Amino acid sequence: MRIIVIGATGTIGQAVTEALSGDHDVISASRHGDVRVDLSDPQSILAMYEKTGKVDAVISTAGSGAFGPLDALSDEDFVFGLGNKLMGQINLVRFGREYLNDGGFFTLTSGILANQPNPASVLLTTLNSGVEGFVRAAALGMPRQQKINAVSPPLVKETAEKMGWGPNGVPAVDVAQLYLQSIKGRRSGHVFGM
Amino acid sequence: MRIIVIGATGTIGQAVTEALSGDHDVISASRHGDVRVDLSDPQSILAMYEKTGKVDAVISTAGSGAFGPLDALSDEDFVFGLGNKLMGQINLVRFGREYLNDGGFFTLTSGILANQPNPASVLLTTLNSGVEGFVRAAALGMPRQQKINAVSPPLVKETAEKMGWGPNGVPAVDVAQLYLQSIKGRRSGHVFGM
Repeated sequence: MRIIVIGATGTIGQAVTEALSGDHDVISASRHGDVRVDLSDPQSILAMYEKTGKVDAVISTAGSGAFGPLDALSDEDFVFGLGNKLMGQINLVRFGREYLNDGGFFTLTSGILANQPNPASVLLTTLNSGVEGFVRAAALGMPRQQKINAVSPPLVKETAEKMGWGPNGVPAVDVAQLYLQSIKGRRSGHVFGM
Repeated sequence: MRIIVIGATGTIGQAVTEALSGDHDVISASRHGDVRVDLSDPQSILAMYEKTGKVDAVISTAGSGAFGPLDALSDEDFVFGLGNKLMGQINLVRFGREYLNDGGFFTLTSGILANQPNPASVLLTTLNSGVEGFVRAAALGMPRQQKINAVSPPLVKETAEKMGWGPNGVPAVDVAQLYLQSIKGRRSGHVFGM
């Protein structure tokens, strides 16, 4: 399959790209890659698809939002998070359907904080829950047997190490398998998690 | 209790106001009421709280977003829905915590389309899921024993009649009971539905 991986330079994105590259033609897209895309910028999403042309799968491992308790989040944190992780991923689907071949797959990223919230995840839990809601409903109206799923990654081991959170989390190589599952079979509207 | 009902002129808002008025001091807020508020406008939310002062509960029965399949939704539909039903209700909480008395209640409105999506609910399912995610996480970090819940109304009978959808739905007077439940007891982070 011809597959765009968005966020390809991130921890999960790298692992997904590596896991796919043996069997598939992977187009790496990121804010600073060969194919540039910034989820916050709808024009850059349109430009990405114009550059890639038709594909069989679009996998988003990107999207960010601020971590912190409600008191600590600014208006700008909300605007950025809603525009990036939620609306940015929605726009990947809105603008990408015409570039996705019959029976192709969209995979978006939510996150375990959707269902395992903590006081500092208030924005991310909101965004992740929105992404999962979007996937559930959008799956019911996709054209040409296109499928749409989400992956809800757990805490990634490499990220926990980088952040100094000690020996916690699941290795990125294992998290990448969730994305591979999401583009196999006939499931649509599903959230793949651990 | 002293309670603000936002969206008080709507079908659900009227029923909630009526159900509360016997036992409580209800302040009706809406886009065209005595106390004006427009969820899309953060300044109007701040102005509302400055006018009402301290309260024991804030009940939102407001918030809207466009209904229609993904193809039919415009950029403006997404911007409006995210800013109104999702961010508008989040701002009620962000700006309202200092006006809410110890142990007070916030009740936001999601909707049954969060969990019972259909092809035309893609935006509303996204918004409702986001609202429920916000409530789940925000409940873990509320100050001064403040509580926050959501009500997920089913299709309302009066709305179904107005829309010409035939004899479907639950009477608004019964839906209003979900809002009354949400401001009793100690539950927080809960979604009250039928």
